[in-house]
Amino acid sequence: MPDSGTAPIEFYFDFSSPYGYLMSEKIDALAARHGRKVRWHPVLLGVIFQAVGSRPPADGVSSKGKYIERDFHRSARFMEIPYNPPSRFPLPTQNAARAYYWLHGQDCGLARQFAHAVYRAFFVDDRDISSPDTVLDIAAGLGIDRGELGSALQSPEIKARLKDECDKALAIGVFGSPHVIIDGEAFFGADRLPQIEQWLASGGF
Amino acid sequence: MPDSGTAPIEFYFDFSSPYGYLMSEKIDALAARHGRKVRWHPVLLGVIFQAVGSRPPADGVSSKGKYIERDFHRSARFMEIPYNPPSRFPLPTQNAARAYYWLHGQDCGLARQFAHAVYRAFFVDDRDISSPDTVLDIAAGLGIDRGELGSALQSPEIKARLKDECDKALAIGVFGSPHVIIDGEAFFGADRLPQIEQWLASGGF
Repeated sequence: MPDSGTAPIEFYFDFSSPYGYLMSEKIDALAARHGRKVRWHPVLLGVIFQAVGSRPPADGVSSKGKYIERDFHRSARFMEIPYNPPSRFPLPTQNAARAYYWLHGQDCGLARQFAHAVYRAFFVDDRDISSPDTVLDIAAGLGIDRGELGSALQSPEIKARLKDECDKALAIGVFGSPHVIIDGEAFFGADRLPQIEQWLASGGF
Repeated sequence: MPDSGTAPIEFYFDFSSPYGYLMSEKIDALAARHGRKVRWHPVLLGVIFQAVGSRPPADGVSSKGKYIERDFHRSARFMEIPYNPPSRFPLPTQNAARAYYWLHGQDCGLARQFAHAVYRAFFVDDRDISSPDTVLDIAAGLGIDRGELGSALQSPEIKARLKDECDKALAIGVFGSPHVIIDGEAFFGADRLPQIEQWLASGGF
């Protein structure tokens, strides 16, 4: 069966989500192989967990927490993606997410570069991406004006945009990160990449 | 790198776990391709969840519940395994698990056939595997004596064996189903099969 559609793939994630990071390193190239683009939507898992009554994956269970930490490393090696556990985890990510949406309004290619840079700053270089200064430093490294972005982070429009994205995510059933939607079909978790690949290749299965 | 070891693979599962069922249909052949045998350990997820303070995957979150139900079907299609959603789910599985351990003491090959038959009775033919009668019917279909097995299900030894298996599972960090352990390395979920394959092929990665 040929590729089924051309609509963009929706990719919901939190910048503090390790499996979101793993997905972020693969989804664009996978989509491109099937003639698709991807729309990235950073959201706040804290807001989503509170709204739906969900919990983080380890859920306070120590054996599960130990397993998941090991699984982050192993899954990164399996997917051949660099990964170093951040010394502070998880972190609040509203500054990074707001910066993304402001940048996206200016230059969507640059916003994508910024998103990759934020994820790698956290999961490779152990930088504190919750800090506005770090977010501005990462942006400045891509040639973005610190002052302009710094003001934007405080603007009611950008705060409202992030809130809207979280509301939209909840409305369409997002309950965790990463959450990928292809023509209405949801795939939760970086481990659904093989199913996503087959779905795109065959137009569903 | 060559295959690393020859020790049996440990496979922990609950007979009411859909992802456990998917794993059960693949793990033996995968292990055999790498010269390994698999030791099956049916356990009671209710006991494990209560002991570790964990919860079922959907965790009362309706969007997650809807997703997981859809994911059961889609994952089964992806893995080319028959799947029909049981009309009553989840079910208590202590009778099926006790029968498994008693049979295993008699004839481990027959116990394996019985385990497959229980899983398929539940996830393909929508039979109530919580009922002792259904468990005895499934066993009788494999030529096992109903009366002998019926008595065994009530024996303190078999009850103690299942309890021991649950305790052992907890002691080695099992928190859900399916949970596969290869030379001390744990893999949780049917979606870890690609990592299991690579682990067996290369002796770790």
